[in-house]
Amino acid sequence: MKRKIPVGILGATGMVGQNYLILLRDHPLFEVAYLAASERSAGRSYAEAVEGRWRMGEPVPEGAAGLPVYPVGEIEGALKSCRLLFSAFSTGKEETRLIERTYAAAGLPVVSNNSAHRLTDNVPILMPEVNPDHLDIIPEQRKREGWSRGCLVTKPNCGVQSYVLPLHALRAAGFVVKEVITTNLQALSGAGYPGQSALDVIDNIVPLPSEEEKAFCEPQKIFGALTGDRIEPEDSLRISSSCLRVPVVHGHTSCVWFAVEGRQPSLEELETALSRFRGVPQELRLPSAPDPVIRFTREDLRPQPRLDRDGGRGMAVSLGRLQRSPVLGYRFTALSHNTVRGAAGGAILTAELLEAKGYL
Amino acid sequence: MKRKIPVGILGATGMVGQNYLILLRDHPLFEVAYLAASERSAGRSYAEAVEGRWRMGEPVPEGAAGLPVYPVGEIEGALKSCRLLFSAFSTGKEETRLIERTYAAAGLPVVSNNSAHRLTDNVPILMPEVNPDHLDIIPEQRKREGWSRGCLVTKPNCGVQSYVLPLHALRAAGFVVKEVITTNLQALSGAGYPGQSALDVIDNIVPLPSEEEKAFCEPQKIFGALTGDRIEPEDSLRISSSCLRVPVVHGHTSCVWFAVEGRQPSLEELETALSRFRGVPQELRLPSAPDPVIRFTREDLRPQPRLDRDGGRGMAVSLGRLQRSPVLGYRFTALSHNTVRGAAGGAILTAELLEAKGYL
Amino acid sequence: MKRKIPVGILGATGMVGQNYLILLRDHPLFEVAYLAASERSAGRSYAEAVEGRWRMGEPVPEGAAGLPVYPVGEIEGALKSCRLLFSAFSTGKEETRLIERTYAAAGLPVVSNNSAHRLTDNVPILMPEVNPDHLDIIPEQRKREGWSRGCLVTKPNCGVQSYVLPLHALRAAGFVVKEVITTNLQALSGAGYPGQSALDVIDNIVPLPSEEEKAFCEPQKIFGALTGDRIEPEDSLRISSSCLRVPVVHGHTSCVWFAVEGRQPSLEELETALSRFRGVPQELRLPSAPDPVIRFTREDLRPQPRLDRDGGRGMAVSLGRLQRSPVLGYRFTALSHNTVRGAAGGAILTAELLEAKGYL
Amino acid sequence: MKRKIPVGILGATGMVGQNYLILLRDHPLFEVAYLAASERSAGRSYAEAVEGRWRMGEPVPEGAAGLPVYPVGEIEGALKSCRLLFSAFSTGKEETRLIERTYAAAGLPVVSNNSAHRLTDNVPILMPEVNPDHLDIIPEQRKREGWSRGCLVTKPNCGVQSYVLPLHALRAAGFVVKEVITTNLQALSGAGYPGQSALDVIDNIVPLPSEEEKAFCEPQKIFGALTGDRIEPEDSLRISSSCLRVPVVHGHTSCVWFAVEGRQPSLEELETALSRFRGVPQELRLPSAPDPVIRFTREDLRPQPRLDRDGGRGMAVSLGRLQRSPVLGYRFTALSHNTVRGAAGGAILTAELLEAKGYL
Repeated sequence: MKRKIPVGILGATGMVGQNYLILLRDHPLFEVAYLAASERSAGRSYAEAVEGRWRMGEPVPEGAAGLPVYPVGEIEGALKSCRLLFSAFSTGKEETRLIERTYAAAGLPVVSNNSAHRLTDNVPILMPEVNPDHLDIIPEQRKREGWSRGCLVTKPNCGVQSYVLPLHALRAAGFVVKEVITTNLQALSGAGYPGQSALDVIDNIVPLPSEEEKAFCEPQKIFGALTGDRIEPEDSLRISSSCLRVPVVHGHTSCVWFAVEGRQPSLEELETALSRFRGVPQELRLPSAPDPVIRFTREDLRPQPRLDRDGGRGMAVSLGRLQRSPVLGYRFTALSHNTVRGAAGGAILTAELLEAKGYL
Repeated sequence: MKRKIPVGILGATGMVGQNYLILLRDHPLFEVAYLAASERSAGRSYAEAVEGRWRMGEPVPEGAAGLPVYPVGEIEGALKSCRLLFSAFSTGKEETRLIERTYAAAGLPVVSNNSAHRLTDNVPILMPEVNPDHLDIIPEQRKREGWSRGCLVTKPNCGVQSYVLPLHALRAAGFVVKEVITTNLQALSGAGYPGQSALDVIDNIVPLPSEEEKAFCEPQKIFGALTGDRIEPEDSLRISSSCLRVPVVHGHTSCVWFAVEGRQPSLEELETALSRFRGVPQELRLPSAPDPVIRFTREDLRPQPRLDRDGGRGMAVSLGRLQRSPVLGYRFTALSHNTVRGAAGGAILTAELLEAKGYL
Repeated sequence: MKRKIPVGILGATGMVGQNYLILLRDHPLFEVAYLAASERSAGRSYAEAVEGRWRMGEPVPEGAAGLPVYPVGEIEGALKSCRLLFSAFSTGKEETRLIERTYAAAGLPVVSNNSAHRLTDNVPILMPEVNPDHLDIIPEQRKREGWSRGCLVTKPNCGVQSYVLPLHALRAAGFVVKEVITTNLQALSGAGYPGQSALDVIDNIVPLPSEEEKAFCEPQKIFGALTGDRIEPEDSLRISSSCLRVPVVHGHTSCVWFAVEGRQPSLEELETALSRFRGVPQELRLPSAPDPVIRFTREDLRPQPRLDRDGGRGMAVSLGRLQRSPVLGYRFTALSHNTVRGAAGGAILTAELLEAKGYL
Repeated sequence: MKRKIPVGILGATGMVGQNYLILLRDHPLFEVAYLAASERSAGRSYAEAVEGRWRMGEPVPEGAAGLPVYPVGEIEGALKSCRLLFSAFSTGKEETRLIERTYAAAGLPVVSNNSAHRLTDNVPILMPEVNPDHLDIIPEQRKREGWSRGCLVTKPNCGVQSYVLPLHALRAAGFVVKEVITTNLQALSGAGYPGQSALDVIDNIVPLPSEEEKAFCEPQKIFGALTGDRIEPEDSLRISSSCLRVPVVHGHTSCVWFAVEGRQPSLEELETALSRFRGVPQELRLPSAPDPVIRFTREDLRPQPRLDRDGGRGMAVSLGRLQRSPVLGYRFTALSHNTVRGAAGGAILTAELLEAKGYL
């Protein structure tokens, strides 16, 4: 039996960190060996550090309960005990960038949930099914930054997964999609804990203007081109998104309209493109890769967050209501699990791809 | 003091009927004098008929508690006691049409909340601020149908109010708007009681495909032209709408994108057109007409259903987040109270307009 | 026409403060003349200070929008402009006590929503229908504290209103009630804004242990005896309460069991005692006094927060499901509006009583 | 490898039926071999029958998708294909009794989720950890009814699990508990689909009077004595329960007060009794038996439905907030999963016990 790769988690006591521990329990490739959190938690065992704050529906995994919690920024223990870091430690943008670069410079590949480096020109925003080739920037990144074994990869905002993956499937099938409108109905766990006030979402929904910029910037970069040591965003892709917080625990829903340039394909053609799409993670049979990655349905009343978010163990996108539209041409509704595919799970799949490509 | 006009309510024991009673208590023009409901309720006093089913936040109005409930379809009492009927009695489409026509033929103007007659070519879907001139079809309607004093007017589906009114304000200011995309987040009371299952909307939202056709057909007719004895829908108006049920008690929210043909106006111009719009009900100072009818806000986190639905005593549309969009050109978010403006209140305003125009 | 009494509000920009402004608009006795809040808001007009934070369903009352906001602790302006202060400024307990005493010492009667002084032995926790006689401590309070015209009165925690009032009605009718068990299902607005995390109450309810001590301490003092210059709690009253936060916007619900000593009365006797109860505010016809103050119902499915909280304009207690119980003997369910009767409205009624008794 | 026992499900297309299929997928003892539902579904494959109605968060198990659906009441296929029936077919009480007796008479052991037979004197309400000895009535049942191999066992209402199990643990440890008060906050799935109206539980909670009788009758029988061919309820146990529907998807919460006769034990003694309790299913290591069956916590803010309902794969009771109470003496809060332990899961555990005791 192959030995597992030891991994670490920055921000291990927060909600995303807790989710990593659940998803990495019994993972075939990785095992959790290093945990770091804020000074407040450091120096205690993990079980002590999360007492009264553990918010998963199952207990702290046994292997993690006794691990010591290091302060974020501590390097020596990390280097000794792990070979890859998941970064879910959220603090000021500048400080986050510095922390992540410090670990990368010290020799550790870092897969980050934070937005801090997403728009850094030589750091990819990776969706393993969409832009796996963006990992090819790593040698350039190491050269420019002077890093030997470390590197830095981010995953996108949880809000864009539901529509970027289907749009990619359509583009991969040859349909030129440049204009997109979406309404993103975002779940509560997207804001962490405590996050949104209960008064905002009982008998109410609230606008989320701060999410709306990410909704087009990140896809432009994900669909961008790797040129030399930087990723050029695809500016010709135009996305307008209205984001609202809705009283759903997990599962972001997107109502999507899009135009196809040139010949207007039939709905059957689009359905085929969506339901048959397979990406590199599916080809490589990566442990966390769902197959199919787009669960297509013709049922009228689907997708629904509570019934569909766990599809593909939370890693698939559920897509339905594909129709023609008198404006732009087509529309569908899609949803994905924001804390699995959209956070810890998406980052784990990225780490699996890094391993498969030999970057660990 | 002028004597009030006696009015009747078909379907008086249902939720819309109950809402009529609350809104008509102390109305300056109308007083409730006739109540009709299904056979099950008929023959009892109103207070008895709604015992255990009254769902308003305040008690049964005193004047109504002792009124007898007639069976729907009973004509004689209606003719004797009232001069206008609000129809909120919901049954099969064919039967509803027959019932409403029977009362109209007997000489009573009928303002209907039902969808049954909305697409009948000589029956207007009236929004008093938008197409008050469609009432001019009444003489033609009476002629074709052979009715003397009765007539038939409908109000639109509760889901279209939030965007039809602002679109009209823009068109009235000279902006040619022909392409519209909306996501309609509909409140629970739109489905009546019991309506939606709680399991559909706790930690969940559900598609409402049945609402999506109304979302473009009704606006096309509202914006249509009166030609001879029929209303021609404006087919060149293209609206695509995605409708979902959200766990909000009252207040439908629409995220709206739209294109303006020709010169692209500034946001200030659009804001002016929206915030200064006044319609015939405002000019005539009709008792239920809100002024302003569009409550424009620049606040980032508004509109919100719980905070804004009661604006203008539930009769105004709250509109915010007006922005440019890289697709179609512009967008905003609007909301209106679905059981006030969108049901009983909208019908009462229509009745006030009928009275002002001399049709009672 | 009598001139209105000018009043002030400490903590005017918070949710309770906003509620005061709504409830005092068009009040027949009082008019708002002085507003104070934290340093952050001070120096601006009220409209500016609450921009983006106003959370009432109707706009800022016109009279208040232009008032200047003073910093809490400012005395001179308060003395000049008002004759009574409502204190809803929440900060550390010690500091709150000091602030309230400072205003009282300067000559202003203070009615406080804060818990800081509730257990101070010469400060009453007043429920106008229950212990109006506790106001008789004011002369003693002034003597001991050396205050001339100022005084200090508190209102109880919002969680105890639903059951203290009915228990008092029973005791007033001669039934000796000493053992009480309640489950208090508390609404979100009881925690202010932002208050409870949405993740705590979507598809969830959470224990509120911090409320459980107040649930018996405050009633013991409210039912206590005025002896000399202090109020002696009624220790023989035993109340055990389990408190939980539920996803209701406004309206605390209590499931109550109680024992009656001696002869066991019939349900009819208890119903009579509850439904006929009238207190001093009802006798004096104080402007905010609901009549009846206990709205008794025999309907099986009532009370319900959304349908009943606004009873008596939010000032009444709705009570139903009165039954015999095989344990303790009897039970009922009661609810009251926690931000009206339970906060600003209850304090306003107390102020009306102070005025009627000549303490202003 | 031992061959699995083929089992059948009456009412297989409803929500409880769907839950059985999920819980029995990969069950070590049982495999689903027979499905029956109403006439509407009969004659189709299971996958066809539930199309558009499947409400589980994961797909129809492969083994079940192709099974034919028989009409409830069909005997021959049942006898041929299975050796035990789970009955979740809900119709009129009389008819349900007849259906269940018909299958039992034909030779099949029936474990029922229905209330129809719960108060039949020779049919046990079984909670495997509490009254496993009540299965000893089966020989008497067979004798009186003239059944050879069939028998009839029910499981209790989902609302009583949370407190009956802890009360039993206390009684098993020698504490005499005869007086109990509970508030039961019941989840939505307890009412099936569509069940409760969304308007009842958004910004609201509603009384559930119909559940309150079950709350004491069923525990009296569960704690009753087997005498000859009938079970005598324990009348001296007095339970008063207030039941309300709350907007929680799964997980019933009970706030419980109880008196202990005689010496008043310390909280530590009670904690020990609760946390160490093991019943026959734990001793026999039945496949669905959770261990521990009572998950005791000292955390202040627990139990919470969303975080604790899945404890012990939905089969454990989570219990916390154990405290002294000035009334009755003690109190705690407990919760259990109403569709797992409280419905399909509890019945499966009962079937496992039947098998272990040789009744299949």
